Amino acid sequence: MATHWLFLGFILLIFGGKTETRLSVKEKLNNEVIPSHRDLAPDFKEEYLKQVLDHFNYNSHGNGTYDQRYLITDQYWKKGNGPIFFYTGNEGDVWEFALNSGFITELAAEQGALVIFAEHRYYGNSLPFGKDSFNIPEVGLLTVEQALADYAVMITELKKELGAQKCPVIVLGGSYGGMLSVYMRIRYPNIVAGALAASAPILSTAGLGDSIDSFSGTNIDVFCLLIQDFEKFNPACKDAVQGAFQKLNTLAQQKDYRRIQSAFSLCKTPSTPKDIHQLNGLLRNAFTMMAMLDYPYSTHFMGSMPAFPVKVACETMLNGTDLMSALRDTIGVVYNSTGQLTCYDLYSLYVECADPTGCGLGFDSYAWDYQACTEIEMCYESNNVTDMFPPMTFTEQQREQYCSKRWGVVPRPGWLKTQFWGDDLATASNIIFSNGDLDPWANGGIRKSLSPSLIAINIPEGAHHLDLRESNPADPESVIVARKEESEIIAQWVKAARKKSS
Amino acid sequence: MATHWLFLGFILLIFGGKTETRLSVKEKLNNEVIPSHRDLAPDFKEEYLKQVLDHFNYNSHGNGTYDQRYLITDQYWKKGNGPIFFYTGNEGDVWEFALNSGFITELAAEQGALVIFAEHRYYGNSLPFGKDSFNIPEVGLLTVEQALADYAVMITELKKELGAQKCPVIVLGGSYGGMLSVYMRIRYPNIVAGALAASAPILSTAGLGDSIDSFSGTNIDVFCLLIQDFEKFNPACKDAVQGAFQKLNTLAQQKDYRRIQSAFSLCKTPSTPKDIHQLNGLLRNAFTMMAMLDYPYSTHFMGSMPAFPVKVACETMLNGTDLMSALRDTIGVVYNSTGQLTCYDLYSLYVECADPTGCGLGFDSYAWDYQACTEIEMCYESNNVTDMFPPMTFTEQQREQYCSKRWGVVPRPGWLKTQFWGDDLATASNIIFSNGDLDPWANGGIRKSLSPSLIAINIPEGAHHLDLRESNPADPESVIVARKEESEIIAQWVKAARKKSS
Repeated sequence: MATHWLFLGFILLIFGGKTETRLSVKEKLNNEVIPSHRDLAPDFKEEYLKQVLDHFNYNSHGNGTYDQRYLITDQYWKKGNGPIFFYTGNEGDVWEFALNSGFITELAAEQGALVIFAEHRYYGNSLPFGKDSFNIPEVGLLTVEQALADYAVMITELKKELGAQKCPVIVLGGSYGGMLSVYMRIRYPNIVAGALAASAPILSTAGLGDSIDSFSGTNIDVFCLLIQDFEKFNPACKDAVQGAFQKLNTLAQQKDYRRIQSAFSLCKTPSTPKDIHQLNGLLRNAFTMMAMLDYPYSTHFMGSMPAFPVKVACETMLNGTDLMSALRDTIGVVYNSTGQLTCYDLYSLYVECADPTGCGLGFDSYAWDYQACTEIEMCYESNNVTDMFPPMTFTEQQREQYCSKRWGVVPRPGWLKTQFWGDDLATASNIIFSNGDLDPWANGGIRKSLSPSLIAINIPEGAHHLDLRESNPADPESVIVARKEESEIIAQWVKAARKKSS
Repeated sequence: MATHWLFLGFILLIFGGKTETRLSVKEKLNNEVIPSHRDLAPDFKEEYLKQVLDHFNYNSHGNGTYDQRYLITDQYWKKGNGPIFFYTGNEGDVWEFALNSGFITELAAEQGALVIFAEHRYYGNSLPFGKDSFNIPEVGLLTVEQALADYAVMITELKKELGAQKCPVIVLGGSYGGMLSVYMRIRYPNIVAGALAASAPILSTAGLGDSIDSFSGTNIDVFCLLIQDFEKFNPACKDAVQGAFQKLNTLAQQKDYRRIQSAFSLCKTPSTPKDIHQLNGLLRNAFTMMAMLDYPYSTHFMGSMPAFPVKVACETMLNGTDLMSALRDTIGVVYNSTGQLTCYDLYSLYVECADPTGCGLGFDSYAWDYQACTEIEMCYESNNVTDMFPPMTFTEQQREQYCSKRWGVVPRPGWLKTQFWGDDLATASNIIFSNGDLDPWANGGIRKSLSPSLIAINIPEGAHHLDLRESNPADPESVIVARKEESEIIAQWVKAARKKSS
């Protein structure tokens, strides 16, 4: 869920022009020539819809509106008849999702569908109050319910506008976007015929972590689960990471801040326990990213990643001259993919927030931080027992303190479970829950089918919503099989919906 | 839906002490000695729950709370095991519903249930901002969604508090309360196992009137339907009412305001077309009330009514010395049940609002007016063709103008249909839609079963949610049969829910 799509641009902005490359894992990267995102784009038109600011209060902003962005392509659509594939945009610029969900376009070509990628309010260009969107109280209109209402209204409006009233709508999304797809189907089955929710941790984000463990034997914490990816590659890898953190801890206890700076190539000498805490967060975050994005080819989603980043990281850890510099080079996979960084700036590369797995940087990070402070429960912790990181707690109390200070809000644990049914989905239908076994988020989602129409698809060799990505020669067999199954189920839903409405 | 529970008290307040009885239909009333409401009460305890002010905005009022009232009785409850029957309170003081829904208590005695009657925010004593609740923007937190969220939270909290976690919850409601029961089941099936929605016009209030006519042959407008009750009793009755309105119209065109005052015993001489419009509204409203509340015994719900008020009205219309004074005496059934009124005050007995079928008086009327200005579509009109009233239009444009001026809001037609599925209920389950053929609201609801678990129960001799009332020797056979069927279905739902959770 960590949102880092702005990393690359941000880093280039700060460090552009510096060519010294003390830190470099570049040689480990897949050095293919990478076209820009826009070059890879299908024939998407960028459009805006006037959207009501507040769906749930007629007096707070009257009928005030904002411009919500969406991308649309009808290049494969059987006009007025083919289905609509609607991506329920999540925590970032909608182009990022459109450009990293090629499976949806492939599916559209196959099934004659119209494709729409909708941008979530308060992300990307869809800022309801422009640069003031993250002021208090303006930020208050950022909720899951408002976002879902936006999508319900957008689908209804666009169907009218495009003469698509009879076209069944399938929603699709990855990660938080997958959660939104689930919620759209359960909240608006009058509008949505089915949902493909890829890597959607609907259980863990609703505070249901402890009760539904089926994988790890202990808990479903992200940090606990991602250790397995590294262990699986090579048990020595995990030991090396733990060893490096131990060394850092020893130096920190000795207050040997200069050696820490040197070992980790920090731009400034750390000087307080807070700085060390920040460094630990920065390091841990890199591992979360690599495990999530452990795709079998290089990608440009939430920054740039080499093929098999976990493998790259483990090799780097094991081939270093010493543990700490190995760790430093390893996080370069995430923070220094261009190889152009000369030093790490502790507080600009990673910002601590209400989501211990990271909020990314820039405006989008404010929005996600706010959501993690309100409805979405992200109380993940590392403990150095079930994971390989130093103990970093994040209790409900810490969350409350932080959120109250940062945003003037008090989280309401249990709310998401009440609103969106938690694990009590028996009355729902037509949802695919896909998850990849490599993904540390996987066990926060639904791993077993709940009924013939609530279908879990597990992808042994899949990272975070790999199935939504376009087909690639490096794809493992399991994702090819999963996509085929998804395609068949969706075709059935469309057929049934068409029959119902005719 | 018209809310008139405050009428009686209000009238006594204004006219108390005056004993002259020029207007009297008292002799036509069922003169039984009527105990006060409170004497009839089951063993209800009145309680309050701290409730979040704004469920959908964490910054508008922070975690600010208000005290939501509810009534509870465990006198029949098999503690920790029996089901919970939860009345989703509607537009009025919750005691009014508790005291007029005796069937629920009878059902609880039969099935060992806990009974809770929850009061809707902004009605009765559940005013979030006390006397300032109807200021702008404070009134903005009055929405269907907030009310549903209140109920979802209340059920969750009380189940914990009472050790009732395993007790299946059935929601029940009448009229708008029945709509809320439907919405609770479709929105929160994780919390609610089934819903009994009595006389819930979920279609017409969502603007779906024209498309689902199955009864009148023309449309499902309340005014169009209530004419049938009067025609059925005696076709001459309808003619008499139409004749009286025609006479009034002729006098109004002649500007013979003194004769109008005298004929209708008005406290003040009307002097403008506006006054005549108001008089027409006052008259029409009385007929709506009598048709809705056409119970076979005298009642004290939304004011006081004799047994068979339509019969009483028709007899009054047909036995009068002249048509206009007969009409005057007829509306006395509604406005002068005590016989103590000496004249009718045009603007205090009836207040025109965004609901052409009436909003009642007092604070509760403000709240209903606001709801009719925002989410609930009440664009009913009379036309003197399909009904017996003078043409009184209420277009979407008139609604918009009024609501903008009165509350600073612009209605959003279509919203209720988007949010609560309109007539597209195929994915829902476990809902009983009961309706009485005497009820002018009936055809705005679901009259045919949609699936084996979306069950329409029609009650040929029933007025507005008669089935929710306590058993009475005067009950027609059809309501006895309906209640039995409802009881059996609810018992099945409870059994199935218990099985699921064990």
